[in-house]
Amino acid sequence: MNQYIPRIVITSGEPAGIGPDICVLIAQQSFDAELVVIGDISLLKARAQMRRLDLSFTDYQPTATHAASTAGNLQVLDTPLSKASFPGKLDINNSEYVLSLLNRATDGCCNGEFDAMVTAPVHKGIINEAGIAFSGHTEYLAELTNTKQVVMMLVGGQEDRSMRVALATTHLALKDVPAAIQADSLEKTIRILHADLVTKFGFSNPRILVAGLNPHAGEDGYLGREEIDIINPTLHKLRQEGMMLIGALPADTLFAKHHLISADAVLAMYHDQGLPVLKHASFGQGVNVTLGLPITRTSVDHGTALDLAGSGNIEIGSMLAAVQLAITLARHQTT
Amino acid sequence: MNQYIPRIVITSGEPAGIGPDICVLIAQQSFDAELVVIGDISLLKARAQMRRLDLSFTDYQPTATHAASTAGNLQVLDTPLSKASFPGKLDINNSEYVLSLLNRATDGCCNGEFDAMVTAPVHKGIINEAGIAFSGHTEYLAELTNTKQVVMMLVGGQEDRSMRVALATTHLALKDVPAAIQADSLEKTIRILHADLVTKFGFSNPRILVAGLNPHAGEDGYLGREEIDIINPTLHKLRQEGMMLIGALPADTLFAKHHLISADAVLAMYHDQGLPVLKHASFGQGVNVTLGLPITRTSVDHGTALDLAGSGNIEIGSMLAAVQLAITLARHQTT
Repeated sequence: MNQYIPRIVITSGEPAGIGPDICVLIAQQSFDAELVVIGDISLLKARAQMRRLDLSFTDYQPTATHAASTAGNLQVLDTPLSKASFPGKLDINNSEYVLSLLNRATDGCCNGEFDAMVTAPVHKGIINEAGIAFSGHTEYLAELTNTKQVVMMLVGGQEDRSMRVALATTHLALKDVPAAIQADSLEKTIRILHADLVTKFGFSNPRILVAGLNPHAGEDGYLGREEIDIINPTLHKLRQEGMMLIGALPADTLFAKHHLISADAVLAMYHDQGLPVLKHASFGQGVNVTLGLPITRTSVDHGTALDLAGSGNIEIGSMLAAVQLAITLARHQTT
Repeated sequence: MNQYIPRIVITSGEPAGIGPDICVLIAQQSFDAELVVIGDISLLKARAQMRRLDLSFTDYQPTATHAASTAGNLQVLDTPLSKASFPGKLDINNSEYVLSLLNRATDGCCNGEFDAMVTAPVHKGIINEAGIAFSGHTEYLAELTNTKQVVMMLVGGQEDRSMRVALATTHLALKDVPAAIQADSLEKTIRILHADLVTKFGFSNPRILVAGLNPHAGEDGYLGREEIDIINPTLHKLRQEGMMLIGALPADTLFAKHHLISADAVLAMYHDQGLPVLKHASFGQGVNVTLGLPITRTSVDHGTALDLAGSGNIEIGSMLAAVQLAITLARHQTT
């Protein structure tokens, strides 16, 4: 039986960054999905030329039938820049353009035209300089889709992409982390994580390792009480519903390989408790996934790298992994 | 030319735990150093018997010449238990015994009888129950040697043991970490780390990666100001003295393999920022090293595992690595 061919939309992101470069670079290979890159087609052609890539371009036409992308061809949903863009040169006049890519991709994911979206990096600073409040892809997509709470997950590990680390808190100063660990939001986070592991990742009863907030998971209250007062009671409550939640575990025990191997996902309490291990184990090929959205979104885990746009040596491993994961997640949702 | 044969003393630790088991298990192999285990010789013989090990025992005699340990023989500095000990059964009456092992080893390291000490695990709880204030090996050895500040470092990684992670703070509740990052103590920590990397590890000009306290190292103050106010000025000051300090770096960037490969050591700001990666990469063979002491001390990175004493399946990888590192450090100091 033939596998379903998902249609994956890729937003090419900040035009002065490496997003357009990555889009033309990955088109050198074939995929078992139909890829549609949203962006200015002249910009994409220019980047292909700068990199001396032998690449043909096709205008995207929404059709009922999906066709797998072939090596050497890039299908583009052409969206013109507001102003010509040059590698490395940010321009506030193109901020609306960057957001329009996200808007179009989100619309298409919501109405079923696309099965998943993959985002190339944007530059927060320049969007804000243009007078548009923007704190990141994740928050923007949550707002567009009217989603109250989302969960950031990084997927990595070696070739098998089997390390999945979700975060209970994300971009907070360390001093603000302990107060942000509250039973309410922690419960919602775990519910979102669990639900998406079932519906998007296809685990029927996912096994989740939950880290404590404090070193040694608080050592029975000797090194902090959040495990006793907040985390363990929340885990206990959710276990009553049948969730397989293990913890609160000391983070350094949890991430030992013999523990990880038995887990479908890890919930770390904060950014630097979970992501250093993930990035260490992922060789620059981590993928960011936003859980809790009504759509499927994966992303590269790096920035715009303005200095490498147009000609620099670029690693496309994270984008390839993000596309591959989007394909996998899209398949789980359509089966 | 023959290499110097260091004399390494091993404290066998809590008698009801796996410490004595580990001591008899490692004696199955030879070392390019003279090992001396301190502990009750009857206890050690009993454990060897329980594990059906074919092992001979030698009474340690301090001699001027060191002789490398051979497989199948254990040299013991006999120190009688206060009370007979049984696997898994803690007894407050043996707390003085446990400390006497550390006292004797420390004396011997201070006076040059031993080149380094390796510690098997002790049980903090039972020592405190005996009415002796004891917060851990590290603090105890600091007090014994009249050392004001010590630094905890974990050494791990794959076979090459090339990952060295020191901590600016250790066993603190997470909420107490930010306030503990102060210029004074951070400067002392870096000085100790740098000095020991030179004198004990043999790096002439060690390259040290320093993590920020906050995610993304504070993102220019947007996610916390400790990098701007405390960490970066401290690094700047010490760089004037010629130290190679790189940072403050985002922890998840720092631990990516292509960054780590260029570093001789990492300084993490707190326990769960640094140790999850180290333990993940070390397959249960991490080694704890106390920096800043006038003596050389390494340790296993696991606990007493009372339930495995006498007969359980025990991994001796951490002890073997701790002994091997003690030998390496001892050699560097004598050359």
